[in-house]
Amino acid sequence: VSDREAPWDHETGPVDPIDVEGSARLIRPQVRPTTLLASEALDAALGSEVRIASETFQHTGSFKYRAALSVALASNASHLLAASSGNFGAALALAAKRTGKRCTIVMPAQSARVKIDAVRSHGATVDLVDTSKTSRLDRVEQLRSELADAQVISAYDDFLVIAGNATLGVEVLEAGVPDCVVVPVGGGGLSSGIVKARDHLRAVTEVIGAEPALANDAARSLRAGVICRDEHESATLCDGARTLALGQRNFSILRRGLGGIVEVPEDAVIRALQLLYLHCNLKVEPTGALAVAAVLAEPARFAQKRVTCIVSGGNVDPALYARLLTQ
Amino acid sequence: VSDREAPWDHETGPVDPIDVEGSARLIRPQVRPTTLLASEALDAALGSEVRIASETFQHTGSFKYRAALSVALASNASHLLAASSGNFGAALALAAKRTGKRCTIVMPAQSARVKIDAVRSHGATVDLVDTSKTSRLDRVEQLRSELADAQVISAYDDFLVIAGNATLGVEVLEAGVPDCVVVPVGGGGLSSGIVKARDHLRAVTEVIGAEPALANDAARSLRAGVICRDEHESATLCDGARTLALGQRNFSILRRGLGGIVEVPEDAVIRALQLLYLHCNLKVEPTGALAVAAVLAEPARFAQKRVTCIVSGGNVDPALYARLLTQ
Repeated sequence: VSDREAPWDHETGPVDPIDVEGSARLIRPQVRPTTLLASEALDAALGSEVRIASETFQHTGSFKYRAALSVALASNASHLLAASSGNFGAALALAAKRTGKRCTIVMPAQSARVKIDAVRSHGATVDLVDTSKTSRLDRVEQLRSELADAQVISAYDDFLVIAGNATLGVEVLEAGVPDCVVVPVGGGGLSSGIVKARDHLRAVTEVIGAEPALANDAARSLRAGVICRDEHESATLCDGARTLALGQRNFSILRRGLGGIVEVPEDAVIRALQLLYLHCNLKVEPTGALAVAAVLAEPARFAQKRVTCIVSGGNVDPALYARLLTQ
Repeated sequence: VSDREAPWDHETGPVDPIDVEGSARLIRPQVRPTTLLASEALDAALGSEVRIASETFQHTGSFKYRAALSVALASNASHLLAASSGNFGAALALAAKRTGKRCTIVMPAQSARVKIDAVRSHGATVDLVDTSKTSRLDRVEQLRSELADAQVISAYDDFLVIAGNATLGVEVLEAGVPDCVVVPVGGGGLSSGIVKARDHLRAVTEVIGAEPALANDAARSLRAGVICRDEHESATLCDGARTLALGQRNFSILRRGLGGIVEVPEDAVIRALQLLYLHCNLKVEPTGALAVAAVLAEPARFAQKRVTCIVSGGNVDPALYARLLTQ
C-alpha cells in the first residue's frame, strides 16, 4: 500500500487525490478503448437492456493495465514490486516495460505456468514463493528491504490505481449513461474507480457491485460499516475476486458511492460465461462474467432497465474454460 | 444465383457492377466496424507483424451480415430465399427483418439446433430438407416456384454480396495498408470483396487466400484457369469453406486479383484457433482461424511482413470449441 495522502489546498480545502480528468488525459491515449457490445439474444436471456463493456482486449487482457500504467507513469522509482498471481502482475510488468522501469512480481510457486510465462514475457522478474512457508506479503516486505530502489504497489488500495481504473468509467459513461453500471468487486479497485468517474461526470446512474457469494467480504463490509475480512482465500471460480478484504481507500469510496452489492452464486457465473460465449462471441474469465451473472442472479432488480455490465478480463486457462463451457 | 448482369454506359463503356464506394456509404452506418487487434505474443508465435481484423462481433457473429444487408437493401422482392446451414442464413434472416422483408432459409434437417434457432430468432422461416432425398438447391428451386414473390440469394456469387463484403476491405485498408491481407476462401465472396476494395482504393497490398487443404477447389481452380469442383462436401473443420466450387463472378475477380492461395492443413487451423484464444482472448470458429493458420502453415511466405489476417466469424458449437481448445 502506498503512503500517498490527500494534499490540502489552502484556498479551497482538501484536494481530491484522485484526478479523474488528468488520469483520463494521460492514460487513454496509451490504452485500448473498451469494447462495447450488445445482443438482442442476451437481452432476452437477461430480461434487461444490456450493454457489455469488455476489457478482454485491453493490453494484457484485463482492465488492470489502466491501473498499472497510471502508477508506473507517476512513480519516480526505478523498480516496481508487487504480489499478484493474476492479471495485475502481467499488467504491472508491461507498464513497467513501457515506462523503462524494472519490475518484480511475487507469485505463489503453484501458479499456473501460463500466468508465470505472461509476466516473464514482459521482461519482469518472477519471484516464486512457497506460500505454505512464507506469505506473499511477507516475501514482498523481505524484497522491499533487499531492493533499495523498489516501490511496492497495491493492485487496488492506491489513489493512482483508482484513478487509472476511473478511465474505464469515463469511457463507459461517455458512450451513454445507463440506469446502472454493474462491476465486479474484489479488492474494490475497479468499482471505486467507476464510482469516482460517475461522480466526476455527475452522471445519474447507480453503480452496483457483483461479488462471488463465496467471497462476500465486501457485501458484509458494507452492511457492517467496517471492513470485514475473509478468513482464508475463497475457492470461488472468480480468482480475481478472492481478495480477503477491500482496501481502505476503496471502502471509503464504496460505502458512500455504491448502490449495493449482488452476492453471486457460482452457477450464475458459469451460466453468464456461457451466455457471453453464445450470444456475444466473447471469451471471458470467470471474474469477468460476474456482472452479467449478477443480472442473472437478481433479475427483478434489473428488469427492464438499461444496464451496462463491465467484463473485467478474459484470461482463463483453456482446460478450465472448456470445462465451464460444456458443463 | 441472381441474374443481374453488368450494366453498360454508352459514353464510357462497361460500368463496374460492384460499387465499392456506394456500398460502403450505404452499409457501414448499419454494421459494426470490424475489431482490430494485435498482440506481441501472437507476432512472436507467427514470426510476422500481424494485425487481426475480427468480424466475430459483427451482427450475427460473422462478416456475412455485410453481404446480406447489401442484398436486402437493394432488393425489390418482399421475400428472400436462400440455402444455408451456417452464417449466411442467420445474416440474411436479420437483414430481411431489418428491411421489412420475409425470409426463408433452407437448411439440412441434421443442422445443429443452435444454428436453426439462430435463424428462427430473427423471424425467418426455416425449411428443413432431408438431404439424403432432396438436394438443398433442388428444394430452393421447388420453393422458388411455389413462392411467387421470393428472390433466391446466393451467399457469394452475386455482385451485391461482393460489394457488401468489400466494405470490410475498405475498413481494413483505411486502418493502414499492410504488405498483405490474408482471407478465408470458401465460395469466394469475401476474398473477391477484399480484392475489389483493394483495387478501388488503389492500395498496394497482396491479397492471399486461405483455404482448407481438404477442400482446395479454389486453389485447383486458380492453377487450372477454370473452375474446379469438389466431388462432395469436404469433412474439413472449416464448415464455412466446404463450398463445392467458387462462384463465377468470384472466380473472374480472384484469378486476376488474388496473389495466391495457401492450402491449410487441419492441424494448423486448430493451432491458430488456440493461439487466438491464448494471445488475443478471441473466440473464433474454425473457418475464422484460417487466415492465421495460413501464416502458421507457410511461415517463410509471411516472415517479417506486415500481415492483416481476417477472422471471418466466431460461431462455433461449445462442445466442438472445447474439444479443439484442449486437444
